[in-house]
Amino acid sequence: MPRKNTRKNAFYAQSGGVTAVINASACGVIETARRHKARIGTVYAGRNGILGALDEEMIDTGKESAKAIAALRHTPGGAFGSARYKLKGLEENRAEYERLIEVFRAHDIGYFFYNGGGDSADTCLKVSQLGARMGYPIVAIHVPKTVDNDLPITDTCPGFGSVAKYVAVSTREAALDVASMSKTSTKVFILEVMGRHAGWIAAAAGLAGEKAGDPPHIILFPEIPFDRAAFLKKVSDSVSRHDYCVVVVSEGARNPDGRFLADAGTTDAFGHKQLGGVATVVADMVRSELKLKYHYAIADYLQRSARHIASKTDVEQAYAVGRAAVELALKGENAVMATIVRKADRPYRWAIGKAPLAKVANQEKMMPRRFITPDGFGITAAARRYLAPLVQGEAYPPYRNGLPDYVALRNVPVAKKLPARRK
Amino acid sequence: MPRKNTRKNAFYAQSGGVTAVINASACGVIETARRHKARIGTVYAGRNGILGALDEEMIDTGKESAKAIAALRHTPGGAFGSARYKLKGLEENRAEYERLIEVFRAHDIGYFFYNGGGDSADTCLKVSQLGARMGYPIVAIHVPKTVDNDLPITDTCPGFGSVAKYVAVSTREAALDVASMSKTSTKVFILEVMGRHAGWIAAAAGLAGEKAGDPPHIILFPEIPFDRAAFLKKVSDSVSRHDYCVVVVSEGARNPDGRFLADAGTTDAFGHKQLGGVATVVADMVRSELKLKYHYAIADYLQRSARHIASKTDVEQAYAVGRAAVELALKGENAVMATIVRKADRPYRWAIGKAPLAKVANQEKMMPRRFITPDGFGITAAARRYLAPLVQGEAYPPYRNGLPDYVALRNVPVAKKLPARRK
Repeated sequence: MPRKNTRKNAFYAQSGGVTAVINASACGVIETARRHKARIGTVYAGRNGILGALDEEMIDTGKESAKAIAALRHTPGGAFGSARYKLKGLEENRAEYERLIEVFRAHDIGYFFYNGGGDSADTCLKVSQLGARMGYPIVAIHVPKTVDNDLPITDTCPGFGSVAKYVAVSTREAALDVASMSKTSTKVFILEVMGRHAGWIAAAAGLAGEKAGDPPHIILFPEIPFDRAAFLKKVSDSVSRHDYCVVVVSEGARNPDGRFLADAGTTDAFGHKQLGGVATVVADMVRSELKLKYHYAIADYLQRSARHIASKTDVEQAYAVGRAAVELALKGENAVMATIVRKADRPYRWAIGKAPLAKVANQEKMMPRRFITPDGFGITAAARRYLAPLVQGEAYPPYRNGLPDYVALRNVPVAKKLPARRK
Repeated sequence: MPRKNTRKNAFYAQSGGVTAVINASACGVIETARRHKARIGTVYAGRNGILGALDEEMIDTGKESAKAIAALRHTPGGAFGSARYKLKGLEENRAEYERLIEVFRAHDIGYFFYNGGGDSADTCLKVSQLGARMGYPIVAIHVPKTVDNDLPITDTCPGFGSVAKYVAVSTREAALDVASMSKTSTKVFILEVMGRHAGWIAAAAGLAGEKAGDPPHIILFPEIPFDRAAFLKKVSDSVSRHDYCVVVVSEGARNPDGRFLADAGTTDAFGHKQLGGVATVVADMVRSELKLKYHYAIADYLQRSARHIASKTDVEQAYAVGRAAVELALKGENAVMATIVRKADRPYRWAIGKAPLAKVANQEKMMPRRFITPDGFGITAAARRYLAPLVQGEAYPPYRNGLPDYVALRNVPVAKKLPARRK
């Protein structure tokens, strides 16, 4: 660990799937580092995540104006590029760690801020151990991020609240549409949302309804084995009662045998495996079994990039964990993740905490069964209590010519000092 | 036509696919009628469009508070229900027209305000002729609405500007996402948008980019026969140059033989015709021919119900044509549609005009070829000049508990006076 009052540069990188607010965390890291110039020199950002360190392809965030850095707070995507890349264990791939140390040393880097999910927390933990294991002292702090909301200990994961808001808003809006059309046209609307392992995002759609009978009428969770007969009956009942039915399906919905519902074994005219989301599979059931007219939407990247409808709470938390990561580092912490701690549900109060990375890495927080109604198709009051605060508030980006004015950084490269990495 | 100073009730109905702003037009009609109580009694809304008149299932909008009617301005969907139902010709189905007259007479209806697209303009025209042909004088004014933007004479169609804004914003956001992921993951992102006959909505995605090389890199229009080789080369070039490629595809994209691209002749494991959007077909090409990782989104109803990101210009125009319809009726006009007249591009200035329904009904305004770049994959400066003003301004709805506070009207039925319709 760098001694107090020893000025070192910092490395910041984004990892895994990006979100509407990961740049707000970057903003929190960079703005906070800039307020501590005696301790932190320059924040170098990895171009395409950790690869930027391995390839010595770093971005000098010091070349960005204060205004540009502030604009990260309202800009979705990953401003420096992200990567899906998990470092292997120290024993399995010692060369990679030696390369990291080589790059860190060449650029006088003493702080490592890593912004990602569970896999990234594992990488961050390994980097924090470089001091003890390989003699290169470095402070490694994890900045949580994932739309999947599956990191342990933290009350929620920055990125999730905004997807939750997008999905709830979209469900409410599309439901008004199909309700208007049902007399002579579409009876069933299906919205496919993300969440391969856990139903957090699908659950958020439940916030669209406020009283019994409100859409969405059916949510299909990865946690509940798909019951075809019960599903079709529920669709049919909803159409009988309301003249329409809104279904939200998680991409991770599974058959009782564990196979993804989306893996329907369908093939095209050439015998290729047919691509297509789970929405298509569900729609086809509605058509063939119930002969009802349907529409479906697949939100995909739209849901996690929709900064225009981000949750203000989420934006603030994303910024706060970025700021906290720097402050934790300056307090002498290492191998921890900044967390969100819930103090109260209504009114919602939260604070920043910390969790040791050893307890975070490679752990998935699943949605509790008590968040799902007994019939498996809806959310409970407990789920609402948990979810509702996370979508609170709007944090609109500025607009120019009718479109959000998102910033494109200059992303000036740091001059390389080393030969290229051996791959 | 009712004589001046003769007070008559009005009938208002929504027709065809609903939009994010059709209720703003309803708001314009009802609020304006309420300011002219000496001439217009009550506005009765058709439950499920014109079916509400045929079945004598009408809603007494007089029972709604001023606040509830004002909230229509920010509520998507069709507040009274819409219908896909086209009246046949007077000679083919005289009984239907006689029933309309019977209902209108029973409820002292002298004004007919019909809110829809091209087919509905035809219905509105037929209703306007009831006076001359069947001795029941009625003033029929059309209120334009369609996300397809394909009505003639009017500069644009209320509903389109908001879809355009949604699609341009979503394209810009998702592009930032895939650009961040492209180094190690997704290289191609495909967004499917509406527009079965014309590429207006797809063209709007082009607003997301501002300079050469900006996403979207490819737009597939219904107007341009799909050239598979040219498309794949363009995807490949974009990935070589930018490391990623954003494709926006209209659901109406067609093969050179005229077949929809979505009609890929694919079947599932049981030999059923495989459902699925055109995005799936395009994605499969990218996978099988270029071996590139892709993601795709299908916006479907989300795009036309997204009141949360409506264009302020569109909301204002939707309200204005509703108001104008009532004012035109009170000026003694009949068989006309309220139109938007463009006075200037930059700064955008517009006014309300009128067009005879005989010139509107059953006409489709196609997108001019000069709006599409010579290579068929992008939009021109002329298209930008036309489109840019239509997405200007934000008109956020109010929020409650983190979600848009959309109004649900009481929709109190008008007491029936007639026996049920013979069907």
